[in-house]
Amino acid sequence: MSPLYLFTDFGNGSPYVGQLHGVITATAPSLPIIDLMHDAPSRDPQGGAYLLAAVLRDLPSPFVVCAVIDPGVGSDRLPLAWRCGQHWLVGPDNGLLAVATRRLQGGEPHRIVAAAEPRSRTFHGRDLFAPAAAKLATGQEVGLEPLDGRPVGWDWPESLGQVVYVDAYGNLVTGSRPPGADAAIRLGGRELRRAATFSDVPPGEPFWFENSFGLLEVAVNRGSAAELFGLAVGDPLA
Amino acid sequence: MSPLYLFTDFGNGSPYVGQLHGVITATAPSLPIIDLMHDAPSRDPQGGAYLLAAVLRDLPSPFVVCAVIDPGVGSDRLPLAWRCGQHWLVGPDNGLLAVATRRLQGGEPHRIVAAAEPRSRTFHGRDLFAPAAAKLATGQEVGLEPLDGRPVGWDWPESLGQVVYVDAYGNLVTGSRPPGADAAIRLGGRELRRAATFSDVPPGEPFWFENSFGLLEVAVNRGSAAELFGLAVGDPLA
Amino acid sequence: MSPLYLFTDFGNGSPYVGQLHGVITATAPSLPIIDLMHDAPSRDPQGGAYLLAAVLRDLPSPFVVCAVIDPGVGSDRLPLAWRCGQHWLVGPDNGLLAVATRRLQGGEPHRIVAAAEPRSRTFHGRDLFAPAAAKLATGQEVGLEPLDGRPVGWDWPESLGQVVYVDAYGNLVTGSRPPGADAAIRLGGRELRRAATFSDVPPGEPFWFENSFGLLEVAVNRGSAAELFGLAVGDPLA
Repeated sequence: MSPLYLFTDFGNGSPYVGQLHGVITATAPSLPIIDLMHDAPSRDPQGGAYLLAAVLRDLPSPFVVCAVIDPGVGSDRLPLAWRCGQHWLVGPDNGLLAVATRRLQGGEPHRIVAAAEPRSRTFHGRDLFAPAAAKLATGQEVGLEPLDGRPVGWDWPESLGQVVYVDAYGNLVTGSRPPGADAAIRLGGRELRRAATFSDVPPGEPFWFENSFGLLEVAVNRGSAAELFGLAVGDPLA
Repeated sequence: MSPLYLFTDFGNGSPYVGQLHGVITATAPSLPIIDLMHDAPSRDPQGGAYLLAAVLRDLPSPFVVCAVIDPGVGSDRLPLAWRCGQHWLVGPDNGLLAVATRRLQGGEPHRIVAAAEPRSRTFHGRDLFAPAAAKLATGQEVGLEPLDGRPVGWDWPESLGQVVYVDAYGNLVTGSRPPGADAAIRLGGRELRRAATFSDVPPGEPFWFENSFGLLEVAVNRGSAAELFGLAVGDPLA
Repeated sequence: MSPLYLFTDFGNGSPYVGQLHGVITATAPSLPIIDLMHDAPSRDPQGGAYLLAAVLRDLPSPFVVCAVIDPGVGSDRLPLAWRCGQHWLVGPDNGLLAVATRRLQGGEPHRIVAAAEPRSRTFHGRDLFAPAAAKLATGQEVGLEPLDGRPVGWDWPESLGQVVYVDAYGNLVTGSRPPGADAAIRLGGRELRRAATFSDVPPGEPFWFENSFGLLEVAVNRGSAAELFGLAVGDPLA
């Protein structure tokens, strides 16, 4: 039994999250459910795709992920279940899964063929993706067909030069792989050097580092890079 | 064993939530605990009552709910445990449970008779409601007496024409049942039509729909209805 | 098996929290994990120390705590595991554990001797503290050595006269023990009296009380003390 990780833009503490937990608990009573994050880039499957690929990098294996950033819910975008070795990733065919599955050297995307129409047209997370993910995590049967054609995002580049997350400290997480250790980054008219950790630079000083999940991140020791540079999720960086 | 759902206005991530989990885990070690929401309308049992009734509508059965919006904590308001068929709802007698229990065609409200005074006068969620709910979810004994007289909220109407929740997308969830599918709603000098899902209207366009838990909701495709109309929780709508 | 409580400044809903859950679930699959709080005073181990000591006070026994407020991550500050009777507290040697362990009449602090260098220099919560805490909670072996010398914070006073938490209602939680019941507190040019609970004072009226975990707290019935007095976490109070 693989733990089921949730990754959405529903907002922290949203009742939609609680409803996912409810349907998963009913489908697979003893399955561990882990809230990986619920403030992924809002309605931005591409920004979310680079963040998802990174935060999955060092998770203990095996895992199942239910990822939902789904502005096209209720349209004709397809629901996917994507096997990557011992892992499964479940979510909409809008690119959200494309970067993570490529890094996981990812097998074949399947289309989920639901036995019945989802109950709602606005909440496929609850009505389709979460139950399918819970079943896949516990070896229950799910209707799947190989995907015709290529999934959205198959040709996206390795890095996305924008802010994909601002954490509680004001650190700026980008969708980019870090440059070489000696490289400097220009930002807001300043030249930022690499540091290995926060306390290696003086308080108030900005720097860049390879973060704990492999992305280029800009931070300020005991300060907020988001405030210092006036940047937010979606803004270009590096 | 029914999962135990928590519904409070404690605030997402509040230490009060963690303390509820602690006492529940001690009372019923393997009981699944689900955080349904903790940013219910602050200190507003009536707004919370309509939201609670809705978010419970499609939960897998059976369930136990511990609901706490309790500005009168430590006063003489009574603590309730309310059986509705196979479900139990536990919380203060201030109307918070009244709408949900009516929709669940709800049996008889009972007064919780605690064996001892609650440890604190300011946190009955931890000291009284959560332990009682955990016991009811796992078949342990709880001191109960039939309630004398009617519970607060027994005569509240079917709909509450105000915003009871603003989600992370800025969608405005009301306490009202949706009108007929052809009805238009007037809001901020505009006439809003119904759409079945977000992508059925152009980006930036406001519309109304019946949300995934049966309430009238106003949204903007790829925008924020809360910003567009300048509305927040507690404001009248429909 | 003791439940494992998490207490950090990672921010509510941060992906760092999800990653802690992942590594703990992999280390100890059926261990209950409880998010006690993740918005502890940001980068302030001292403010966090007084809050942690208080929120632990009434937890059901036994418990294991993984506490991470760690601005010195990756420097030479030591990683601690501190046995207090049947409890274990795990976290950095920066004072964060000092007040809680003293109140728990706390045994001997140990230094964690990791088998290998932590994978990252910026996220010892995931790479060192959480795995060690999960092992201690489930009786698995952890490399420990008695700490040479005194831990940081051993000489901190019993009370910290500053705001250590502002809850969702705007209540001001201080790091101080309450004064005698008849004492008044001067704040913002007003004299605040003690009340036993919110509804004992008129709406809009500020008062002080001993909160449900034993700290001096300033609140306003149906209002926000944080707004009324213009105070935030870190500001001096009492």
